[in-house]
Amino acid sequence: MPEIAVLAGDYIGPEIMTAALKIFEAAQKVTQTTYTIKAYPFGGAAIDQTGSPLPEATLQGAKAADAVLLAAIGGPKWDQATERPEAGLLKLRKALNLFANIRPTKIPANLADASPLKREIAENTDFVIARELTSGIYFGQRYLKSEEAADTMFYSKTEIKRLLVTAFEMAQNRKKHVTVVDKANVLASSKLWRQVAQVVAMDYPEVTLDFEYVDAASMKIITQPTQFDVIATSNLFGDILSDEAASITGSIGTIASESKGVSGPNLYEPIHGSAPDIAGQGIANPISMINSVTMMLINTFQDTKTAGVIQQALDQTIAQGILTPDFGGTATTAVMTAAIINSIEKAAPSYV
Amino acid sequence: MPEIAVLAGDYIGPEIMTAALKIFEAAQKVTQTTYTIKAYPFGGAAIDQTGSPLPEATLQGAKAADAVLLAAIGGPKWDQATERPEAGLLKLRKALNLFANIRPTKIPANLADASPLKREIAENTDFVIARELTSGIYFGQRYLKSEEAADTMFYSKTEIKRLLVTAFEMAQNRKKHVTVVDKANVLASSKLWRQVAQVVAMDYPEVTLDFEYVDAASMKIITQPTQFDVIATSNLFGDILSDEAASITGSIGTIASESKGVSGPNLYEPIHGSAPDIAGQGIANPISMINSVTMMLINTFQDTKTAGVIQQALDQTIAQGILTPDFGGTATTAVMTAAIINSIEKAAPSYV
Ligand SMILES: CC(C)[C@H](C(=O)O)[C@@H](O)C(=O)O
Ligand SMILES: CC(C)[C@H](C(=O)O)[C@@H](O)C(=O)O
Repeated sequence: MPEIAVLAGDYIGPEIMTAALKIFEAAQKVTQTTYTIKAYPFGGAAIDQTGSPLPEATLQGAKAADAVLLAAIGGPKWDQATERPEAGLLKLRKALNLFANIRPTKIPANLADASPLKREIAENTDFVIARELTSGIYFGQRYLKSEEAADTMFYSKTEIKRLLVTAFEMAQNRKKHVTVVDKANVLASSKLWRQVAQVVAMDYPEVTLDFEYVDAASMKIITQPTQFDVIATSNLFGDILSDEAASITGSIGTIASESKGVSGPNLYEPIHGSAPDIAGQGIANPISMINSVTMMLINTFQDTKTAGVIQQALDQTIAQGILTPDFGGTATTAVMTAAIINSIEKAAPSYV
Repeated sequence: MPEIAVLAGDYIGPEIMTAALKIFEAAQKVTQTTYTIKAYPFGGAAIDQTGSPLPEATLQGAKAADAVLLAAIGGPKWDQATERPEAGLLKLRKALNLFANIRPTKIPANLADASPLKREIAENTDFVIARELTSGIYFGQRYLKSEEAADTMFYSKTEIKRLLVTAFEMAQNRKKHVTVVDKANVLASSKLWRQVAQVVAMDYPEVTLDFEYVDAASMKIITQPTQFDVIATSNLFGDILSDEAASITGSIGTIASESKGVSGPNLYEPIHGSAPDIAGQGIANPISMINSVTMMLINTFQDTKTAGVIQQALDQTIAQGILTPDFGGTATTAVMTAAIINSIEKAAPSYV
C-alpha cells in the first residue's frame, strides 16, 4: 500500500493539512484506492514535543514513505529557539536529497484579473522555476562572531548538473527554452553554473539556452513574464524569484510545489508559509494544500483518477464562490472543506 | 570651481552622457554657474584603450573630483575579457568607499498608468532602497576550480552600521519607517544585520523598525508597494530588489541613483545598463542621465537653481511628447536633447 508521510507543521499548517486529508479520504472512497497516512511532528510543533525540529522518527518516517506531504512550518514562537523550525526543513531537504524544487507560475487568460499586473502583461504567463534545493548559500559554511559574520555560496559541478538536467528535461516537454539565472558578472559560482549549462545543453539540441542576470530576471518577471519557459537557478536566487513569480499570479494561496529527490520520495507542499497572523481563526485557505495532494497523486502515484475527483470538486466549489476571506469569500476552512467533500460524494457514481 | 569626473562608459553610455552634458552646459549659461567637467575612460572603453576597466588616471580623477557622473558600462564585447568592465565598477565603488546606493521608487498617481502593476496597487508608491555597496558577496573571497566554486557573503558590524545609519537618517526625514530585508532564518550574516539594526534603532526612537525576509519582500514590492518607506539591505539583495522596484514604475529609463561616499565624492548614475541592443542607433532615452545630473546638483552642490532650470525644461519637453521610442515617442536622442536645450534658452530670462 502506498505510504505518505504527513508533516502538518505549525500555525495554519495543521488547519490546511486536516482539510486536505479529509478531502483526500473522501476521494479515496470514490476511486476505491487506499493510501496509508502516517503523521509526524515537524518544525515548531516538533520542537515543542521533542526539542528538535526534525526528530529522528520523523526523518525515518519520511525516508521510508513513497511521498512526503508538508503543510508549513515556522513562526514567531520559535524565533529565539536554539534550533529553529527552518533548520529542520533544511535538514529534511538535505537528508531526502531533495535537489530540485519545481514551481509552476501560470496565469491563464481567465485568471488574469487576479494578477497584480495589468492584464496585457500577465495573461498567458506560463513558466516553471527549477530551484536547486540542497546546496548553495543555504548549506555552505557560515559563522557568526560578535564583530563579523559570513556565509558561503558553494556549488559543485555535480550539484549544478543534476538540477540543470531536470530543467532541460522539463523544457523538452514544454516550450523548449531554458533560462539560467545567475550573477555571473560578479560571482564565481555563477560562472561555474554557466560552464555546466553550456555542456548540459549539448545533450538537448532542440532546447534554446539563454542566461539572465538575477537583477534583470527580477525585472523581466514583472515586465515580460510570458518570455520565460523554464528558469533554472541556484537555491538563494530561486527562493527570491519563485516567490516573486508566485506573487504575479495573485493566487499565492493556490500554488503547490514539488521537491524532487534523487532516488527517495518527493515532497509536496504549498508555496506559502505558516501565516501566524491568521492561524487559529479557522479561515486559512486550503486550496494550495489540496493542490499539493493532487500534484502528489499525479507525479508520484500516477493516480490521475483520484486527483481528478479532487480537482473537479475543488473547481466546482470555487465556481460556486465558496471561498475563504483571502479570496474574497466568507467561508471558513471547514465550510469550504465540507463543500468540496459534498461535491465529491455527489459526483461519486460517475467515477465508480 | 566645482569639479565633476565624467565616466561615459560603454554602448549607450556615451550617447546619453553627451546629451546630458550639453543640457547641463546650456543650464550653466542661464544660471551663470561654472562646473569643470573632466572625462575619463572607464569600463569596456577603458579596457579597449588601456587594458584595464579602471585605469589609474580614472581612479585618481574620480577621487579628486567633487562628484562623479557615470553613464553605464559593460556589454557582450567584453564578456570574455580577463578583467571585465564590471570589475572596474566594483573597484571604483570600493576605492571611493561608496558604501550606500540610494534608489528612489516613486509612482505618483499621474504616472501610475506607466506601471506594469494595476493602478490601485501602484499609485502613491513612494519608497527608497538603501543598498550596501562595498561589501557582502560582491567583495568576499571567492574561487573557481574545475569541479567547484564558492563565493563568500561577508559583513562586519561597521559596514552594516554605516548603511543602517544612512537608512534611519533618511527615514527620519520621510515616513519614519525602516524595513531591514534579509534572510535571517538561514544566513549568519543576516543575523548580524538584525543585531546591528536593533542597536542603531535605539538612536531613532521615532522611526519604526521592522524586518522582512528577502523572499517575502520580493512579493510585497509587487503586491503592496505602498507599505514601504526605507528598505535597508545588503549588496546582493539590494541589487535584486532595487531592480525589481524600478520595474514597477514602468519608467526604468528615467531613474537616477546616488552612491554615497564615506568622505570623498558621491557618484550619480542611471539605474539602467548600457543597452547594447539599441546602442549606435541614436535613440537612447537620456532622461535618467539628465536626472542623474540634477540629483548631483541638488545633493552634492546644493545648486537647486541650475537643477531647477534643467528640471523645468525636461518637464516641458516631456509634456510636449518629445520622447524617445522606449517611451512611445519618435524623437531621437539628439532631437530630444535639442528640444530641452531650446526650452532652457527660451526660459532663460526668468532665471537671470
Ligand atoms: C523557510 C525558508 C528556510 C524556506 C527557504 O528559504 O527555502 C522558504 O522560504 C521556502 O522557500 O521554502
Ligand atoms: C554591473 C553590476 C556589477 C552591478 C551590480 O550588480 O552591482 C549592477 O547590476 C548595478 O546594480 O549597479
